[in-house]
Amino acid sequence: MDRTKIILEERDMPTKWYNILPDMPTPLPPPLSPQTLKPAGPEDFAPLFPMALIQQEMSDERYIDIPEEVLDVYKLYRPSPLFRARRLEKALGTPAKIFYKYEGGSPSGSHKTNTAIAQAYYNKLEGTTRLATETGAGQWGSALSMACQLMGLECMVYMVKASYNQKPYRHMLMEAYGAKVVASPSELTNAGRAAMADYPDHPGTLGLAISEAVEDTVTHPGTHYSLGSVLNHVILHQTIIGEELQKQFALIDTEPDVIYGCVGGGSSFGGVAMPYVRDNLSGKRNVRLVAVEPASCPTLTKGLYAYDYGDEAKMAPVVMMYTLGHDFIPSPIHAGGLRYHGDSPIISSLYHDKVIEAEAFKQIGVFEAAMQFIHTESILPAPESAHAIKAAIDEAMRCKENGEEKNICFLLTGHGHFDLAAYDAYLNGKLEDDEYNEADEARAIASLPKVG
Amino acid sequence: MDRTKIILEERDMPTKWYNILPDMPTPLPPPLSPQTLKPAGPEDFAPLFPMALIQQEMSDERYIDIPEEVLDVYKLYRPSPLFRARRLEKALGTPAKIFYKYEGGSPSGSHKTNTAIAQAYYNKLEGTTRLATETGAGQWGSALSMACQLMGLECMVYMVKASYNQKPYRHMLMEAYGAKVVASPSELTNAGRAAMADYPDHPGTLGLAISEAVEDTVTHPGTHYSLGSVLNHVILHQTIIGEELQKQFALIDTEPDVIYGCVGGGSSFGGVAMPYVRDNLSGKRNVRLVAVEPASCPTLTKGLYAYDYGDEAKMAPVVMMYTLGHDFIPSPIHAGGLRYHGDSPIISSLYHDKVIEAEAFKQIGVFEAAMQFIHTESILPAPESAHAIKAAIDEAMRCKENGEEKNICFLLTGHGHFDLAAYDAYLNGKLEDDEYNEADEARAIASLPKVG
Repeated sequence: MDRTKIILEERDMPTKWYNILPDMPTPLPPPLSPQTLKPAGPEDFAPLFPMALIQQEMSDERYIDIPEEVLDVYKLYRPSPLFRARRLEKALGTPAKIFYKYEGGSPSGSHKTNTAIAQAYYNKLEGTTRLATETGAGQWGSALSMACQLMGLECMVYMVKASYNQKPYRHMLMEAYGAKVVASPSELTNAGRAAMADYPDHPGTLGLAISEAVEDTVTHPGTHYSLGSVLNHVILHQTIIGEELQKQFALIDTEPDVIYGCVGGGSSFGGVAMPYVRDNLSGKRNVRLVAVEPASCPTLTKGLYAYDYGDEAKMAPVVMMYTLGHDFIPSPIHAGGLRYHGDSPIISSLYHDKVIEAEAFKQIGVFEAAMQFIHTESILPAPESAHAIKAAIDEAMRCKENGEEKNICFLLTGHGHFDLAAYDAYLNGKLEDDEYNEADEARAIASLPKVG
Repeated sequence: MDRTKIILEERDMPTKWYNILPDMPTPLPPPLSPQTLKPAGPEDFAPLFPMALIQQEMSDERYIDIPEEVLDVYKLYRPSPLFRARRLEKALGTPAKIFYKYEGGSPSGSHKTNTAIAQAYYNKLEGTTRLATETGAGQWGSALSMACQLMGLECMVYMVKASYNQKPYRHMLMEAYGAKVVASPSELTNAGRAAMADYPDHPGTLGLAISEAVEDTVTHPGTHYSLGSVLNHVILHQTIIGEELQKQFALIDTEPDVIYGCVGGGSSFGGVAMPYVRDNLSGKRNVRLVAVEPASCPTLTKGLYAYDYGDEAKMAPVVMMYTLGHDFIPSPIHAGGLRYHGDSPIISSLYHDKVIEAEAFKQIGVFEAAMQFIHTESILPAPESAHAIKAAIDEAMRCKENGEEKNICFLLTGHGHFDLAAYDAYLNGKLEDDEYNEADEARAIASLPKVG
């Protein structure tokens, strides 16, 4: 137990993803077509995704083999390390042990690479020559750009214009990987041109970027669409995180009492949590699983559990999820990856069934926690990941008060090398806290599709 | 041999640094005082460095124990991985095997952390409360800022103004680590004020930043000066790279035929090469060791072997080294960390004795090699590190021509996350090649101090 890092050998890397769908306490309600609001079948998804991913999206197999070619790419950065945060523990003076699994060592800098590689691989297998996607904060666009280059696919990224201008290094990274990146709204699509006709200086939104990427997909032969969160197959691919984590804790004969992960669409938290959900449900383990979200976009803690559109433009499927309403515009916090109005249907259902928990934090407290982490563990975390750090530190301080020697774990999803402007704002006292306006609930209810 | 990464366990991390000084084929000529041009003793260095580092600078012990507290911090990112570049090999179609040791996984993003931690530690031990330094490209400033935070020291960084403005994320990273960073020339020193009085828009130079840091040191009680390259004790601390590398190759029962590393002041190359120099000299091994430098700052390949000042301002000791003259101003290539007019006395002496070799490359070819690497291995390299990639790829292509199955290794010293503007310039056709002007040799000779 005196190691700083617990590292698995490449040969011990998991070779299967875990699919929670057959183990869900409540079966997922079907996705609906955004046009008809009737249940959508594989044929509704075929213009956007390859059949292998559509099958994974609704599979009842509990384990799915990770293809050899995907495993080969994973080996560039996996298994990812599990750290014991001894310096942070000491600085806090807590009797708790703090662990973190670090996904920021992937070449693109976050956990997003885990699904990007798989999606690019299955698309290549079925003859796709080009993938289109949107990106907000840029982690997903970077990951897909990298994956497409490795799999020999072209990559087209619609990046929310405000981010494109605020984070130039993000689109430069995608371009270094060989992707074509345009600021959204762009001149390349009807959706983009219409938005700019209405409002020439339109700063872009994720919803609009999705609309552009989907329109690009259906108008370009050989092109499919790719999404980095929310969907079942994305969480499936991310389960390698949790499967590795269980093996790593077994190596040091330790069991976490609680695992914290940030949630936007839910892909990283889903990835780390699902293998533990499986074992909690079967009675094999008893590990608290806590989703951490921003107070300004409190989907789980203050949203409604209802059918809603996946995007502002009502082009994505309608799914049952916790939502703040598809027209909700969260305040411009720096954790751009957590500014989604909804949440993965899997995460939403498990939260509704009280299998997982949720907490929400304001951003100044989150940055304070990030600074404590930087000053002790030296890794600069992404602002998204720092939400989990905040929750873990708070728990460690409760342990200090109560004299409890808990094992606290959190998922550090990515590094913050491209988020330094946010740290600069924090250090110069320019960050503001913002809260969800409870009055927004009426607006959210009014905006929901009238289903059934 | 089918692994992608060869990883040492923490318990197999070397616990001693290797000191080449007693094994040098030709003993190093003594450093001289810049004022008197007479040999300098420990007392000349005492205002700047703690005694432990001064002793290491001139030690005749072949091995020096790495302190436990330094080993503990190393474990945050060490042992660093050795990769087999299978995708790059395949893309080149070479029968050679290509390996790279990656130092960019350290929290500050480069190998500089290895000596920063040691220097901060020994300073803390002797009661130093504050370190002052200069930084150009920013890798060194980031590493020392991180190390000072961990060791509880204040850190003051004078950053060349042109870099400060071009690479804002670099100084923000240092500030996140708790350092105070000012653009040099600054208002804080006589040297800075004088430079700005002459030239209000002075863009700064490394030499001027050194002058400011040294002046800061001698005018602030409790402050010492810290240098990230060139000096013997810096190369000593970096030898953990080469010691690990030997263990990693032993794990796969392989011996490299050649190792490439980039050189500016020589710290990373010295670190990876010295354990191999030791074994080559003793007859135990026979590994080619090649220092790779920019064609626009060709210190080893076109410089003079002579006593010269370590800095433009003639405040640093005068040492025997390959030099282009202390007043040489290299063209503004993007590999800012390689723009030093001289080279480490250790590297210089070994090159003069033909124990190591050197090659120089122009920057457009270097960036072409970097792109081949990014598109196959997915890691974005620092422009400095990409010089070694270029040399390795050229060797792999020679192997292809000759049908040779060599084992080629290079040191990847850091990531390029803060250098994306350089990649952007390359991708947009805005990079220019620049060569050393042979006529500069006369100027260099004229500028040398008249010794003995």
